[in-house]
Amino acid sequence: MRLTYFSDYAFRVLIYLAVHPERRCTIQEISDAYGISKAHLMKVVNTLARAELVVAQRGPNGGLVLAKPAETIRLGDVVRRTEEDLGLVECFRAENTCRLTPNCGLAPALGRALAAFLAELDKQTIGDMVHGHEQSISRLLAVP
Amino acid sequence: MRLTYFSDYAFRVLIYLAVHPERRCTIQEISDAYGISKAHLMKVVNTLARAELVVAQRGPNGGLVLAKPAETIRLGDVVRRTEEDLGLVECFRAENTCRLTPNCGLAPALGRALAAFLAELDKQTIGDMVHGHEQSISRLLAVP
Repeated sequence: MRLTYFSDYAFRVLIYLAVHPERRCTIQEISDAYGISKAHLMKVVNTLARAELVVAQRGPNGGLVLAKPAETIRLGDVVRRTEEDLGLVECFRAENTCRLTPNCGLAPALGRALAAFLAELDKQTIGDMVHGHEQSISRLLAVP
Repeated sequence: MRLTYFSDYAFRVLIYLAVHPERRCTIQEISDAYGISKAHLMKVVNTLARAELVVAQRGPNGGLVLAKPAETIRLGDVVRRTEEDLGLVECFRAENTCRLTPNCGLAPALGRALAAFLAELDKQTIGDMVHGHEQSISRLLAVP
């Protein structure tokens, strides 16, 4: 069980923006900071923009900022928006052929476990990930 | 976020054996019941045998039985044994290159979410999946 790279990178973008609240950041600098390809990051940023978690401003002085305060972006909400597929097993998904489906206790049990996973993530925000550590995180992400 | 097919099929094997406690079952009949290839099921059964969740008896009267009562096999334990990779994001894994790692709150938050996921699954057993529904599940799995 893994989150997609998409979610992983989305968290990194949000953390990057949260430690640089005073200015617009570029995809190039985020790409350099994490060593992640710009092409990947552009897709992630598009999804975060559609989810109204970041605002991408175009133009020569353009760049990315968080669309709302970091302390209002719950970790579970990020996963809900970036994981296309929270269908843990076949019967959660459209192509289900499992013959147990009409009388199976497993799907609801897995559904409760997924809800517990997301509820636990919702206890913390992007703000919690960075508050009090802005300087040390900035140093870690500074391109040498 | 998905469980692997490996876990999905492991649950199906355990449920199959739990509704047929009175006899040894063959991989062939489980393959026929679910429409899953024997080759896939053999790998799953090998893992379940190594995890001491099923016993595979060889020979002409051989077959599979649960290694212990269905009501003692917690769902979380199945996932722990069948998911090779519970490394939700890169920093859980050996090949980690994320520069946030020395000062990141995300990994512990995801670790707590994973623990909540497994703890929720541990509230139920394979026995809970079938008790009271043995006959209806048997009918669903009967090969026409």
